[in-house]
Amino acid sequence: MSANSILLDFSLDPARIIDEVSRKDIVRVCKEGLEKYLTGLKISYDMLTTDGYLCILSETGTGTIVTIRFFEQGLITINVEYYRKDGDEAKISFENMKMLENGLRIRLEAKRSKHLPPIKRGSSVDVYLTSSDERVIEYDIDRVLFDKRSEFQKIQIVHSRSLGNMLVLDELQNIAEADLIYTETLMCRGKEDYAGKEICILGGGDGALLYELLKEGPKMVVMLEIDEIVMQACNKYMNTICGDVLEKRTDDNYEIIVGDCMVYLRKYIKEGRKFDYVFGDLTDIPISDTPTGEIWDFIRTILESSFQVLKPDGKFMTHGNGVSCPESLRMYEDQLAKLTPKVTYTKSSAFVPSFMEEWVFYQVQREVANATESV
Amino acid sequence: MSANSILLDFSLDPARIIDEVSRKDIVRVCKEGLEKYLTGLKISYDMLTTDGYLCILSETGTGTIVTIRFFEQGLITINVEYYRKDGDEAKISFENMKMLENGLRIRLEAKRSKHLPPIKRGSSVDVYLTSSDERVIEYDIDRVLFDKRSEFQKIQIVHSRSLGNMLVLDELQNIAEADLIYTETLMCRGKEDYAGKEICILGGGDGALLYELLKEGPKMVVMLEIDEIVMQACNKYMNTICGDVLEKRTDDNYEIIVGDCMVYLRKYIKEGRKFDYVFGDLTDIPISDTPTGEIWDFIRTILESSFQVLKPDGKFMTHGNGVSCPESLRMYEDQLAKLTPKVTYTKSSAFVPSFMEEWVFYQVQREVANATESV
Repeated sequence: MSANSILLDFSLDPARIIDEVSRKDIVRVCKEGLEKYLTGLKISYDMLTTDGYLCILSETGTGTIVTIRFFEQGLITINVEYYRKDGDEAKISFENMKMLENGLRIRLEAKRSKHLPPIKRGSSVDVYLTSSDERVIEYDIDRVLFDKRSEFQKIQIVHSRSLGNMLVLDELQNIAEADLIYTETLMCRGKEDYAGKEICILGGGDGALLYELLKEGPKMVVMLEIDEIVMQACNKYMNTICGDVLEKRTDDNYEIIVGDCMVYLRKYIKEGRKFDYVFGDLTDIPISDTPTGEIWDFIRTILESSFQVLKPDGKFMTHGNGVSCPESLRMYEDQLAKLTPKVTYTKSSAFVPSFMEEWVFYQVQREVANATESV
Repeated sequence: MSANSILLDFSLDPARIIDEVSRKDIVRVCKEGLEKYLTGLKISYDMLTTDGYLCILSETGTGTIVTIRFFEQGLITINVEYYRKDGDEAKISFENMKMLENGLRIRLEAKRSKHLPPIKRGSSVDVYLTSSDERVIEYDIDRVLFDKRSEFQKIQIVHSRSLGNMLVLDELQNIAEADLIYTETLMCRGKEDYAGKEICILGGGDGALLYELLKEGPKMVVMLEIDEIVMQACNKYMNTICGDVLEKRTDDNYEIIVGDCMVYLRKYIKEGRKFDYVFGDLTDIPISDTPTGEIWDFIRTILESSFQVLKPDGKFMTHGNGVSCPESLRMYEDQLAKLTPKVTYTKSSAFVPSFMEEWVFYQVQREVANATESV
């Protein structure tokens, strides 16, 4: 049940947009094309705009409204909008949209044309998520399994036909059942040796990183997650990626602490507790243009504190951003360059199914440690 | 340079949609919210529709038009549409769209709300492609490298920031530089032994399958591709996936024949020529509901002819469809079930980056051959 916006557009000679006779003819052609699928279209309103012309058509007896716009640059856009109830046939099937587009392109002698699958609006299942570089992606989400707002964020677990269950935090895709590659790239499986190591995870509430690390025989993993509700949701719906670690919460070789990771990092610093690895599995690094915001401060604080609890040759492992956001990645690297003591870093990347993009991960360690290693 | 459609929607109590006073109030609130970003909005037109209400606002001195629709089911949609020239700032940045949505959600006391990244229309670089199950996906395509219509299809090679160069045939994503997994899953690398084998590829004009097969030491690979222009385009822009095979066209262990694969299959049948493997790397299997169309006939003919040139234990390897299209996959399997002599098949699948979905591949062989094997 949603309002459907069917969007078509056609590029043609700008002269034909400005000329009134030609414009009337174009509206007539569009109307005739649309009337194969919509009954009794009539023009309800039209007006000249600063850069062209607008014409509103309505279908007799239904709420379907067609908006045709002419842009002086040589573009015509058509929006067909109607409310589609559950079980209703689409007014114009995808196959028919193709035919409508092709038919109009030929009749309008358009240089190019395009139609999009209908944009579904107001549906209880939200299928549109956004990539790191603000592209719209329609997911094959068919059910919402969990939907709650915690003290910290909006938490949803949805089901995608191709990705399995997927954790969505504040409208951002976090991890899906199909995303083992995410965890494996974050931890550099096969390259890093976790056997007998002491590890601290900052965040990681979905449990996937902890679950995979435990397979590598670490001495101890401490996970610091602030949001109890995320863990409850993942424990219930994401077992294939987190096993029983969120259910058990603690065992000989791991412990999950519900709390603010900064509080515990400070505690560990005071106690002199040290780790071989610290994982930053918190909020995504921000995309904003200038590294002045609260989130960047938070990220720098996390980095500095993490290095205070890392052994001299310890590593800070974290996710970065999409490769499509080079500015954001560069800004993160700028932050790394500012750290004292100096650090060096390597990068890994992988196409993460639920992100629908190639994602970059960082492995950061002290420069001194590297120098020592190379001796 | 494109027209931008900014789409927002808000769900609220249906009673507030029907009541005229409440409706006026809602329009006022929307107008005030929008006026943070648009200057001097005035109502140009409004009308009652069969299922609600429509209101058109225009921005003073610009071509920006805002369409607000009320649907009696309890939904308000807002479209903000304007022409954005190259170099122009967005009227409402993505960050501001979030703020606009949040602000209006609170002021309208909406139960849910949504905004999408602006839909770009009429751009010379088309960034929207469609998944096998008709979902819209915005790609990070930034350049069109090749754009020609051959005798057989519309051929484009575009550049995606995350996927590299990508072959698009008739608006369908075919293969990108990031898609080695596609070829490896199609050929079941690591499971099938191609050393010393005779192989026939039907289609495969991008050259990737041929290129990868040659790494496995086959005796001979014959590739039958109908579209010379696809091969020229891929040879120029897709070298990372096809190497020099499309440039050389022939060598001791392979031969590319430009022609209709059916003609050559018939020739091979007549000659009694046999292969260990036939690859079906042609058009995608269709999504349509009933297996009566031309394409299904074509697919069945291909299958039948392929088995006539396959050795008794030979295999037919092909791509299927997205896992999100179970009906289409089932229909393909129905076609397989109808073949004489009887066949059995196995399936493999992989998430293909440029498809942005999990794709299914088939390995088909004669039932008799299997029985022999198991003795």
